[in-house]
Amino acid sequence: MRDFSDAAMEARLNAFSRKQGFNAWFGMECVAAGKGQTELLLPVRPELTQHHGFVHGGCVSALADMACAWAGSTARGEDVVTSNFTIHFLAPAVGTHLRAHAKTVRAGRTTVTVEFTVNAEAEGKEPKLCATGMAGIAVLGKSEAA
Amino acid sequence: MRDFSDAAMEARLNAFSRKQGFNAWFGMECVAAGKGQTELLLPVRPELTQHHGFVHGGCVSALADMACAWAGSTARGEDVVTSNFTIHFLAPAVGTHLRAHAKTVRAGRTTVTVEFTVNAEAEGKEPKLCATGMAGIAVLGKSEAA
Amino acid sequence: MRDFSDAAMEARLNAFSRKQGFNAWFGMECVAAGKGQTELLLPVRPELTQHHGFVHGGCVSALADMACAWAGSTARGEDVVTSNFTIHFLAPAVGTHLRAHAKTVRAGRTTVTVEFTVNAEAEGKEPKLCATGMAGIAVLGKSEAA
Amino acid sequence: MRDFSDAAMEARLNAFSRKQGFNAWFGMECVAAGKGQTELLLPVRPELTQHHGFVHGGCVSALADMACAWAGSTARGEDVVTSNFTIHFLAPAVGTHLRAHAKTVRAGRTTVTVEFTVNAEAEGKEPKLCATGMAGIAVLGKSEAA
Repeated sequence: MRDFSDAAMEARLNAFSRKQGFNAWFGMECVAAGKGQTELLLPVRPELTQHHGFVHGGCVSALADMACAWAGSTARGEDVVTSNFTIHFLAPAVGTHLRAHAKTVRAGRTTVTVEFTVNAEAEGKEPKLCATGMAGIAVLGKSEAA
Repeated sequence: MRDFSDAAMEARLNAFSRKQGFNAWFGMECVAAGKGQTELLLPVRPELTQHHGFVHGGCVSALADMACAWAGSTARGEDVVTSNFTIHFLAPAVGTHLRAHAKTVRAGRTTVTVEFTVNAEAEGKEPKLCATGMAGIAVLGKSEAA
Repeated sequence: MRDFSDAAMEARLNAFSRKQGFNAWFGMECVAAGKGQTELLLPVRPELTQHHGFVHGGCVSALADMACAWAGSTARGEDVVTSNFTIHFLAPAVGTHLRAHAKTVRAGRTTVTVEFTVNAEAEGKEPKLCATGMAGIAVLGKSEAA
Repeated sequence: MRDFSDAAMEARLNAFSRKQGFNAWFGMECVAAGKGQTELLLPVRPELTQHHGFVHGGCVSALADMACAWAGSTARGEDVVTSNFTIHFLAPAVGTHLRAHAKTVRAGRTTVTVEFTVNAEAEGKEPKLCATGMAGIAVLGKSEAA
C-alpha cells in the first residue's frame, strides 16, 4: 500500500464506483487513495482497444480523468467534477494493465490542480509511461464518496 | 448532410470503426466527414453515465478525441494518432444523444490542430454545449481508413 | 466598433492597463470590450521579437492571456485571474500588428471559460491566424477595472 | 551546477538569447541546460508586474515557454518552436526571482513533450511553486544555438 493511502477511503471509492454505469463496465480499481493522491489500476481487455490493438486513447483519458477527479476529491473531502483536462500521449498503451497515478499540486477552495501519469504494465517488463497531463478539478461541496 | 461531408468517407470510417474493440462497444456513428471536419453522434445509454446520471466525462472526452483524430485524418488523408488533447467541461451531458463536431484549424505536415465542441441533444430541446477544446493530431503516414 | 463593445468599458480597461508595469511596456490597446468579449491590438516592434524576427511566443501568449482575462472580467463584472491557459501556435507571428479576440464560452460562478484567436496583420495582406486556444479564468470578486 | 547541466551549452544559449529582441529586454538567464532539461532565472522588476504587483501571468508564461523550448532543443540538438503550451497558475508570483525548470518527458522525432514548474524565490523564504504545466515542442531541424 502506498504511504499516502487510506484503506477505508479506497474501499468507499471502489464501492461507490461499482454502482456507476460507465465505471462498472470500465473495470478499473482504486488501489490507493488519500491525501490528494490516487492510484487506479485498469485490466486491459479487447473491448478497450483501438485499431492497432493498443488501449484506446479515450480509455486512457477516461482512466486519467477519474484518477484526477478522485485525487481532487480526497484533497478536499468534497464532491468534485473535472473542469478542464489536458493529456499528452507519449507511447502506445500496450500491456496487461494500465496504472494511473494522480497527485494534487494545489488544493484551492474552488479548484484543485492535479497532475497525472499513466503507465502500461506487463509481467516481466518495465512499466512504460504512456501518458501524462494535468487537470483542474472543480469543488462542488460535501460528497457522498469522499 | 453537412456541406463538408463526403458520403464514401463516412461509410469507410464507420465500417472501420465497427471492427474496433472500444468503438464497437461505444456505439458512436460518424454522420459527416470530409475536408478536415467530422461530426459524430453518440446515443446515450446507462453504461455511459456517472454517479449523477450524466454521460461520464471520460466518455465525452473519448467521443471528442475520436472526432478530432478523424478530422485530422480527413485533413491529411493519412493515419494519425492524438498527440495532445485539452477539454473544458461546460455543462452536464444530459440528453438522448451527444453530437461532437471537430474542425481542423491548421493541417501541418506533422501535426494537425483541431478544435471541437460537444453538444447534448434531446427531442424538443435546444442543443446544449457541454464541452469544448482542442487537440494536436500527429500525422503518421498513409492510412487504411482515411 | 464591434457590436459587443462598450466604449466606457474600453476606456476604463485602457486607463487601468496603462498604469501597470508590464502592460505599460507591452503597449497593447483594448479596441473592443463588452458582453464577455474583448479585442486587443498590439503594435509589433523589435523588442517583442525572437531569433527569427517573429513576435516571441511568450508575447503572443501574454496578449492572448490578457484578452481572455479581460473577456472573463467583462463577462462577470468582477476581478479575475487566469487559472489555466492552453495555446496552440499555428503560424509565425509576422506583421505590423497582432489582434487578439477572446470570447466567453461559459460564465460560471467561479470560473469563466474563454476561447481566443490571435491574428497577425499588415497593410495590404489578409490577416493570418497565428494562434488559438482556451483559458479558464477564476472569478475573485468585485473589480476596480471591470 | 545541476547534474544535468553542460556549461558550454548554457553559455551558448545565453549568448544567443541576449541578441534577441524580447529576451534581451526580458532579462532571464539560463543557469543550467543539458540532457533535455533547463533552468532559467528571471530577476523580478517593476516592468514585469501586473495590477496587484505580482509578476504578470504573461511573463510567467513567457519564462516557462522558453524553458520548455530550450529543454526541447537540448533534448534533440535541433532548432525547435513551441507547438502547444498549457499552464496552470497556482499562486501569485511574488519575490525577487522566478526560477523555471523544464524537463523532457519524451523526445520524439517530430515532437518533444516537456513539463515545467515555475517557483518564486526571495531571500530567507522557501521557494513557492507558482505555476506548472506542459508543452509540445516541434522539432524543426539543425539549430544555431543547441
